[in-house]
Amino acid sequence: MKPDTSPTIKDVARVAGVSLATVSKVINNLPVGEKSRVKVEEAIKTLGYEANTFARALKSSKTYTVALVLPSLKHPFFAHLTDELTKSLMRRGYRALLMITNYDPMAEEKCFAMVRSNKADGAIALTYSPDLTVSGKMPLVTIDRHLGDDVPCVSSDNYRGGELAAKKLIGLGCRSLLHLRVTSGVPGEPDKRGAGFEFKCAAAGVPCRTIILSDRESDLPLFRFVEEHICNGQPEYDGIFCGSDLLACQILRFLHEHGVSVPEQVQIIGYDGIPDRMTGSVSCSTIEQPIAHMAEASVDLILNFNNTSVGANICLPVKYVPGGTTRDEPQASTE
Amino acid sequence: MKPDTSPTIKDVARVAGVSLATVSKVINNLPVGEKSRVKVEEAIKTLGYEANTFARALKSSKTYTVALVLPSLKHPFFAHLTDELTKSLMRRGYRALLMITNYDPMAEEKCFAMVRSNKADGAIALTYSPDLTVSGKMPLVTIDRHLGDDVPCVSSDNYRGGELAAKKLIGLGCRSLLHLRVTSGVPGEPDKRGAGFEFKCAAAGVPCRTIILSDRESDLPLFRFVEEHICNGQPEYDGIFCGSDLLACQILRFLHEHGVSVPEQVQIIGYDGIPDRMTGSVSCSTIEQPIAHMAEASVDLILNFNNTSVGANICLPVKYVPGGTTRDEPQASTE
Repeated sequence: MKPDTSPTIKDVARVAGVSLATVSKVINNLPVGEKSRVKVEEAIKTLGYEANTFARALKSSKTYTVALVLPSLKHPFFAHLTDELTKSLMRRGYRALLMITNYDPMAEEKCFAMVRSNKADGAIALTYSPDLTVSGKMPLVTIDRHLGDDVPCVSSDNYRGGELAAKKLIGLGCRSLLHLRVTSGVPGEPDKRGAGFEFKCAAAGVPCRTIILSDRESDLPLFRFVEEHICNGQPEYDGIFCGSDLLACQILRFLHEHGVSVPEQVQIIGYDGIPDRMTGSVSCSTIEQPIAHMAEASVDLILNFNNTSVGANICLPVKYVPGGTTRDEPQASTE
Repeated sequence: MKPDTSPTIKDVARVAGVSLATVSKVINNLPVGEKSRVKVEEAIKTLGYEANTFARALKSSKTYTVALVLPSLKHPFFAHLTDELTKSLMRRGYRALLMITNYDPMAEEKCFAMVRSNKADGAIALTYSPDLTVSGKMPLVTIDRHLGDDVPCVSSDNYRGGELAAKKLIGLGCRSLLHLRVTSGVPGEPDKRGAGFEFKCAAAGVPCRTIILSDRESDLPLFRFVEEHICNGQPEYDGIFCGSDLLACQILRFLHEHGVSVPEQVQIIGYDGIPDRMTGSVSCSTIEQPIAHMAEASVDLILNFNNTSVGANICLPVKYVPGGTTRDEPQASTE
């Protein structure tokens, strides 16, 4: 780095007519007389002074940095969530330190060690280590996975989402349902989607079959099942609930290519509700997760970690959004 | 943060039997006797000592942090690029400070001010400010946009990508071509795709029409054009080159819904070549950008900023990948 000619804390002290110590107190949110605080804040504004956060970190032991630990940004849900988490942190004057673990448990442990060593104020994590244990030394908020009573967890209401999907498909006339899901095998809140779906089907007396595939397998069995049981001229299932919009769109395309019409012969509901960047509408009928709201809640929890009752589990409401793959009218579509 | 009981620099000095100053020199890569260096490195290993990078930042004026400035993670290309950039930085012991600008020029300027104030070692940016000027105070590498001779830029070979798409569609029998693109209107390297495509069409004597839409507009005109000129029973175009895979998949679905068969009646080639997370194969025939390679090159440039001749423009090769929307065989597909 070349030397920086931006205003320093000394310039602020000179313009405000106060001591360096007073400026330092204001910057680090320590008690100081109201008049001095106003003078310093005005000087900071006038000069466009921006505190050297590294120096500040050593003095106040706050880094104004939160680590975001995610398995990947290659799934749209993770990408959208990281987008919203970063914007929420930036709005509050915090910095987002991004860490990608590539679904590797060892990498996750290493990230948490880095967070502790780098003295970030805490971490928001979406983890995949089957045996992750949290040392308790570090403020941590998890998303979609409940690690223990001392770690707050934020998720959408997955059980209700599954119920909603079943209720909607049955209400739209489906009489034989299929639930398709690809999972990492690590237990998490999204498991509840299937439970909610199956419960609602049983309650309505509508048969339902569930096929769960590990994401370490090829997806061949999934498409082969759909080919044998739906694309054979006599669809055995007239409604499909998919674990993500991504999967729903793949199934949709597969059915299109095999001459099965959606939603006439088969109706499909996905999960996530990520709006298309261009059209602003969802890519299929779906259960919408409140991603921006989940990000905001996670940031709230981590920034108020010591003031909040630990163990908070925040479960945010989902909603059904029609998107053309069910026999109701798409919402907010520009097509 | 609660107090940390990890080993300190004092513990390292004690175990190595050297002075604090010697440990500090080793940590900050300053000249020190070879024997002392080995002793310190062994002590660091034995103790599992991890340097406090904030303290280190003040001493060595290196932060081991690189800012990633991106408009959004909601486009798959940006998400995949950020994933690869972060992993590349982490592999080299650097940290990724993520900043999302939401396509707002003011936010971009603010990010760069933050980078300077936070004393990150530099920034890798994908910018959308029409009038962005770079102060020259900060090491900066841009992706897909050439800001000036003193700022290195990394991109894929967009012109060649356009040429390849035209060559392939014409080779597969197309006789009337359409080029569809949605753009922010800010000039950038991706503009060259259209130029390459049109040049190759003209050279082959194949008519080609280009429709460019601003991403601030509704996409209604785009779909209406496709409806009127392709879905009317007599497709006027038998080959479409789309500015992204996202757009290609939307057009594909629109044609499917209107009873036009792809690739029998109309062939489509997209751009980006982002592999599907589940199948590992591309979602349409496409021009593949070497995203991991682009990330690696950007990180190389920023970490060696002062050693590299500035103004380097790195243009990485693209390739054509068949993916089911053209009349050739899909590659590496599991379907």
